[in-house]
Amino acid sequence: MSAIAARGAFLRRRVPAIQIYGANTGVGKTVVSTLLAKALKSHWPGKDVAYLKPVSTGPDSDRDDSYVHRYAGIRAKTLYQFDDPVSPHIAARKPGFTPPTDDHLCSSVLEWMNRAVPKDGVIIVETAGGVLSPGPSGTPQADIFRPLRLPVVLVGDHQLGGIATTLSAAESLTLRGYDIVAVVVPTGNLGNHNYLRTIFHRQRSVPVYEIPLISDFSRNSVGSPVLEGTDLSHSDATLRAYYNAISRSHMHVIIGEIKSKHARRLYDLDKMSAKAAEVIWHPFTQHKDQTAAGLLPLDSAHGDFFQVYRPSNEYVHRGLEAASAWPDGSDLHAAFDGSASWWTQGLGHGNQDLALATAYAAGRYGHVMFAGAVHEPALMLATNLIRLMDSDNKSRLRKAFYTDDGSTGIEVGIKMALKAASVKYGWDGSSTDIGIIGLKGSYHGDTIGAMDCSEPSTYNKKVEWYRGRGYWFDYPQVKLKKGKWTVEAPAGMEDDFGSPQHYESLQEVFNLDERDSSVYERYIIKVLKQLIQDEGRKFGALVMEPVLLGAGGMIMVDPLFQQTLAKVIRTSPILASMSEAAPSLETDNATNDPVHWTGLPVVFDEVFTGMYRLGRFSSSSFLDTQADISVHAKLLTGGLLPLCVTLASQSIFDAFLSNEKSDALLHGHSYTAHAIGCHVANVSMEKYANLPKMGNWRRAARDWAPTRRAPAEASFVGSGMDPTKYVWSMWTKDFVTNLSNKECVEGVVAIGSVLAITLIDESGSGYNSNAAIKLRDTLLERGSRHDWGIHSRVLGNVFYLMGSMTSSSDTLRLVQKAVTKHIDPTAEPHEKDLDISEDQ
Amino acid sequence: MSAIAARGAFLRRRVPAIQIYGANTGVGKTVVSTLLAKALKSHWPGKDVAYLKPVSTGPDSDRDDSYVHRYAGIRAKTLYQFDDPVSPHIAARKPGFTPPTDDHLCSSVLEWMNRAVPKDGVIIVETAGGVLSPGPSGTPQADIFRPLRLPVVLVGDHQLGGIATTLSAAESLTLRGYDIVAVVVPTGNLGNHNYLRTIFHRQRSVPVYEIPLISDFSRNSVGSPVLEGTDLSHSDATLRAYYNAISRSHMHVIIGEIKSKHARRLYDLDKMSAKAAEVIWHPFTQHKDQTAAGLLPLDSAHGDFFQVYRPSNEYVHRGLEAASAWPDGSDLHAAFDGSASWWTQGLGHGNQDLALATAYAAGRYGHVMFAGAVHEPALMLATNLIRLMDSDNKSRLRKAFYTDDGSTGIEVGIKMALKAASVKYGWDGSSTDIGIIGLKGSYHGDTIGAMDCSEPSTYNKKVEWYRGRGYWFDYPQVKLKKGKWTVEAPAGMEDDFGSPQHYESLQEVFNLDERDSSVYERYIIKVLKQLIQDEGRKFGALVMEPVLLGAGGMIMVDPLFQQTLAKVIRTSPILASMSEAAPSLETDNATNDPVHWTGLPVVFDEVFTGMYRLGRFSSSSFLDTQADISVHAKLLTGGLLPLCVTLASQSIFDAFLSNEKSDALLHGHSYTAHAIGCHVANVSMEKYANLPKMGNWRRAARDWAPTRRAPAEASFVGSGMDPTKYVWSMWTKDFVTNLSNKECVEGVVAIGSVLAITLIDESGSGYNSNAAIKLRDTLLERGSRHDWGIHSRVLGNVFYLMGSMTSSSDTLRLVQKAVTKHIDPTAEPHEKDLDISEDQ
Repeated sequence: MSAIAARGAFLRRRVPAIQIYGANTGVGKTVVSTLLAKALKSHWPGKDVAYLKPVSTGPDSDRDDSYVHRYAGIRAKTLYQFDDPVSPHIAARKPGFTPPTDDHLCSSVLEWMNRAVPKDGVIIVETAGGVLSPGPSGTPQADIFRPLRLPVVLVGDHQLGGIATTLSAAESLTLRGYDIVAVVVPTGNLGNHNYLRTIFHRQRSVPVYEIPLISDFSRNSVGSPVLEGTDLSHSDATLRAYYNAISRSHMHVIIGEIKSKHARRLYDLDKMSAKAAEVIWHPFTQHKDQTAAGLLPLDSAHGDFFQVYRPSNEYVHRGLEAASAWPDGSDLHAAFDGSASWWTQGLGHGNQDLALATAYAAGRYGHVMFAGAVHEPALMLATNLIRLMDSDNKSRLRKAFYTDDGSTGIEVGIKMALKAASVKYGWDGSSTDIGIIGLKGSYHGDTIGAMDCSEPSTYNKKVEWYRGRGYWFDYPQVKLKKGKWTVEAPAGMEDDFGSPQHYESLQEVFNLDERDSSVYERYIIKVLKQLIQDEGRKFGALVMEPVLLGAGGMIMVDPLFQQTLAKVIRTSPILASMSEAAPSLETDNATNDPVHWTGLPVVFDEVFTGMYRLGRFSSSSFLDTQADISVHAKLLTGGLLPLCVTLASQSIFDAFLSNEKSDALLHGHSYTAHAIGCHVANVSMEKYANLPKMGNWRRAARDWAPTRRAPAEASFVGSGMDPTKYVWSMWTKDFVTNLSNKECVEGVVAIGSVLAITLIDESGSGYNSNAAIKLRDTLLERGSRHDWGIHSRVLGNVFYLMGSMTSSSDTLRLVQKAVTKHIDPTAEPHEKDLDISEDQ
Repeated sequence: MSAIAARGAFLRRRVPAIQIYGANTGVGKTVVSTLLAKALKSHWPGKDVAYLKPVSTGPDSDRDDSYVHRYAGIRAKTLYQFDDPVSPHIAARKPGFTPPTDDHLCSSVLEWMNRAVPKDGVIIVETAGGVLSPGPSGTPQADIFRPLRLPVVLVGDHQLGGIATTLSAAESLTLRGYDIVAVVVPTGNLGNHNYLRTIFHRQRSVPVYEIPLISDFSRNSVGSPVLEGTDLSHSDATLRAYYNAISRSHMHVIIGEIKSKHARRLYDLDKMSAKAAEVIWHPFTQHKDQTAAGLLPLDSAHGDFFQVYRPSNEYVHRGLEAASAWPDGSDLHAAFDGSASWWTQGLGHGNQDLALATAYAAGRYGHVMFAGAVHEPALMLATNLIRLMDSDNKSRLRKAFYTDDGSTGIEVGIKMALKAASVKYGWDGSSTDIGIIGLKGSYHGDTIGAMDCSEPSTYNKKVEWYRGRGYWFDYPQVKLKKGKWTVEAPAGMEDDFGSPQHYESLQEVFNLDERDSSVYERYIIKVLKQLIQDEGRKFGALVMEPVLLGAGGMIMVDPLFQQTLAKVIRTSPILASMSEAAPSLETDNATNDPVHWTGLPVVFDEVFTGMYRLGRFSSSSFLDTQADISVHAKLLTGGLLPLCVTLASQSIFDAFLSNEKSDALLHGHSYTAHAIGCHVANVSMEKYANLPKMGNWRRAARDWAPTRRAPAEASFVGSGMDPTKYVWSMWTKDFVTNLSNKECVEGVVAIGSVLAITLIDESGSGYNSNAAIKLRDTLLERGSRHDWGIHSRVLGNVFYLMGSMTSSSDTLRLVQKAVTKHIDPTAEPHEKDLDISEDQ
């Protein structure tokens, strides 16, 4: 049994399947399953109709599968049967028995479904108890089976209180991303079915069907009143009569609904790419190259995996050899989200706690305007961020300004910095050209102000209003090359930066105190003199992505260069020559902050690199450098929603204080500090805070430790070990080293959840290169040797992968195997990549 | 009984209150209420402990209030007692009985609470049935009582299936924005309490307490087994013994929890403004003027109302005369959200359906990357918008590009337009200065590119990188002045635009076909000649907010001027002289769109004016002018989340097609087309589509109809009447007319949900003016003559109000009364404003 199968949802064109959930225990799930099964069997003669009870509790004599088999005459199976008629999480506590993990249980269900109905048919999967009744592991069943995302028939409760339980059960399903096909409610004397019909129709367009209770049926048809009670307590004859009559009279419309929604789902997925190609203008896409067939239709996502629609028949039609790699003609295929959905994911797709958090804030506030007002989620997030930045890297940051995304947050950061610099140096911004100082290859966003912070490149050179405003430094890069961590100057700049330096470990590259920065210092001063003193240029900010330049190609800048650049800009007297006036006294007096900025405000763009992406809350801590302004987004909201926070020091804030409103930072989007984003960010922060304690992280930090085979190893697994104090990657050291030794690889970077492989591209590199595209396409088609693909994005000749912060090491190992296999098809897999068995 | 009281939440420092909800019916809510009441009484001797059952069903002999009174010895009351032991929505169907509306029921509860415990005490409010059991009106109780947002004690279910029902009930409460203080579960033999304790603690930090069942207690203490069954079936002596023993032994820790959470809530609210002033950099705020006391702490929001924290003791302490206007020393006060939270709200705060929609999308997708992929919510929204624009105003728009907010959407619109113009006119954007043509007073957003689309103003003039790029036309404005709709040139421009014109109705101003545009045409051509032929300037787009310029001061531009401007720019041969090359053949051939743009691409910024804000889906339809590019945000997501869609015509799209990736629109934010935003937008679209059928809207359209007293009136109320074909306002015509006659009023604008009053300001007008601030402050303090205030924002000397699209006319009438009263304190209220009784 493969643990990986749980990552695949179930959708097969010729095998509609439904999952029966109940509003409560004992509401008649098995009766409905039996009715449906019986009706399906007569409706579709000759086709397989199969019934599965994944988990059942109760005496063997009273098994649901036997009951369904007896009265519907179809194949029925229980995967886990426990005799004790209690909740499965208690029943499973038997001596010597290890309950199946959620993944295992879900995989077993999928495997059984594919085996039981290999070709045409229908499958009914019946859960135990209510929607959130625990499975054997203790996880609520609606969570365990969520990866399959089967369409749901919800059996409603006809008893007193049943309206409430049915509605709440439906809400629990909905907020887990399930689609409810129909609600079936026994006709009780309370009329619950009437009420539910109205409300389900109005609010969700879900039809509600009623069925007679067995007891009512027997009373009416047999003429003798039968005691109310469990519907399973009737005579065999009564039951046979009931199932015969009701499956004929009541089930066809429900079956019609199931069939038509199944057909509709497939139809919509079938047409999705073509329709999208008609109406959608995709981001960062040359539509001349973008065919409808090249668009991935995503049905849903869960954990680290997309569910990609890829019709099995079309797949076979295309005659691809890999068709056999996909199991059983499934129309949905799991694909590992290898770009973490543009670097946003940290806690997995479809995260239940985060979904509930969004709904809570929506229910408590919706959105409330933020100018002149404050609400708890926004205040808490601001406080948390300031506190966490401080504890991570003793920060200067004291004020939080909200915007909607990294790009707008950078615009705010730039406005802050330029104003502060203008006040200090006495510039009139409306007539002075003020630039920023940055690094080549940096990228800060897509709005004009953010674009102007980067040097001309493919991204911006054809944008009419783009005018790069600033100077961008060259710098040495860090890469693992042939097993050695190498710090290397760009071609032709060895005179400035010296010859390549080699390090035994990445940790050593980041031991900045032990390295000599004098070469960098001299170079930076030389350039600044030229720019400021010789050319008379004016600069208002130093803007950098700490450690890793993302969109520029996952470039690891020598951290010592970044640290030195900030230091020189803060301390060099050259900057003073930009001044056109005495520093404003008012600003200097107004501040309460002991840490004034000097030289230029330092703006760190942590949109990509922050929030544990590289293993630490703040990537600034790798540089041991405190920003005056810092921008945070992407992972901030747990990968759900746009939200950005620009943090600033007190002295930056003070530069905007004045008696004139027009001196204020007159910026603010409609949804500034929207409660949903802030609240889900707070919940995500809480979850992130636990990451460093995870075994995964500790193991990874130990794997990368320079001394990992030395006696000190023990300290890495002890409770005192803190991965955030080290430099490491979730990708294994052996794997990364092995990659760096490949002939086709120029160099590799791995830190935190990021892996970037620069491929040697004979045709020249850059954003327009196609070097990495072949690997990307192969990994999506072939995937791992299991039944899932790997989705990735490339940046020119740089192929990169990025897990979430919670990706399991099993999953990552299998991804590594696939990369190792396909990056260089002639090579044997490295022994270390085989250290976990393929089927476990 | 005031229908308005339901808008106030209940929070009083000296009167902690809780609401008892049950995971199902019959789980022991009344037992828990009794235990708590009894313990509270002995815990706080001398204080009022009161119990309220708003709605109860069952025979009089078995009333919960009598039971609680008997065993806890406290005052207990039922508001609505129905004898039939069924769900209240059925029990309330009695001949001659009209069930209370939700508002009325909720108000009655609030009123009773304030009256029953005038000073110090505790109140327990017990619901009937489960969390979502219907009240008398049929609305689920958790929705009916949501405006009060009382802290909840949830009574869990100890029976088989009770884990599922308890968890789902908690989710239903959470997604309505309730805070669960504690869960109380009877100790059953299934151990539900243990499971629930673990999961509630881990996921929500909510404590779970167990209490013995009465039957277990009596079995143990009395020594004789008592039949399981309803806990109300025990002997009086047993019950007395039980309540005595258990309230002493088990309740103190729960009471401690209730007290400490109450104290914590107040403490957090107390400190909220001061803490916010420390860490938050507010949007559009001169912090030198922003005191902590001036920040409104918002506890929550519901419908059209904020819940503003305003401690009653501090309020009294401040000695404000208005203190008496707030009832009973409440610490939360409702304030009408009179700016629709910066123009975003359309369907009310805390809208339950929208909250569930956010959760569904979060549960199904989280966020999935959009480049090269597509998902149902994004596809559906794009399709919907394109279709709706087309049916609203026969549009050219065929492609949807997603961004995060109006500002980024405008940047995309500008990039689209400039590229299309550059291709057509043969410009090299990197070396050519290309401007836009716009209107004075326009505002398009806060990022640099969006700012550059507006002329220099207070908003942007001190932003270092702002460089207004374009030319902005003067134009005549529309205002209601002294009862006459007036179209008037700006001061000194009568030579260009002629003398003021008067119209009997706003509708007539918008009957563009019947008006003469030749004056405007001549003026526009004169200016274009000057700019393009004489000065050689180049322009790449016409950018306008149709009808109403929002941030510029709710200026209504003469729609005829806007229509004429677009027409001239599309047809005048003057534009051709901007060309530096023959039009690109490739682009002209590539298009599939019969409607090529000519002259310049027309960009409509509908961020504020679209989506029914002015009464129509698209504000472009007022101008009968089809944009080439159109930007939509704010109301798009039902007022919950940032999301923006820029729509473009096929020919604009085609300008980016090329064999080079770098010619594409290389724009895209991390959360582009996030599934949550798209899905909630789709659900909102569905709801908006019903607005024009609402009685409210039809009545308003009739009220504003020029012929409303003519026989044609009947057609306005018939099913054939469509408010989207007329020009009208949700603010009544009499009220608006009356305002326009005030001495202090320069003019009024009213359209759709927007009301804007330009006040005469002797000290000079503009963004820095304080003219409207006094009215704003008075309305917040004094509010209506009921127990709520009116929150508003001002734009210089323009005071404006904006309801949601679903604001009730009762609420709006009361707002109108307050405005009429306070705008000019010496005047008598206009008779028409008194046409609804104050207490109904």
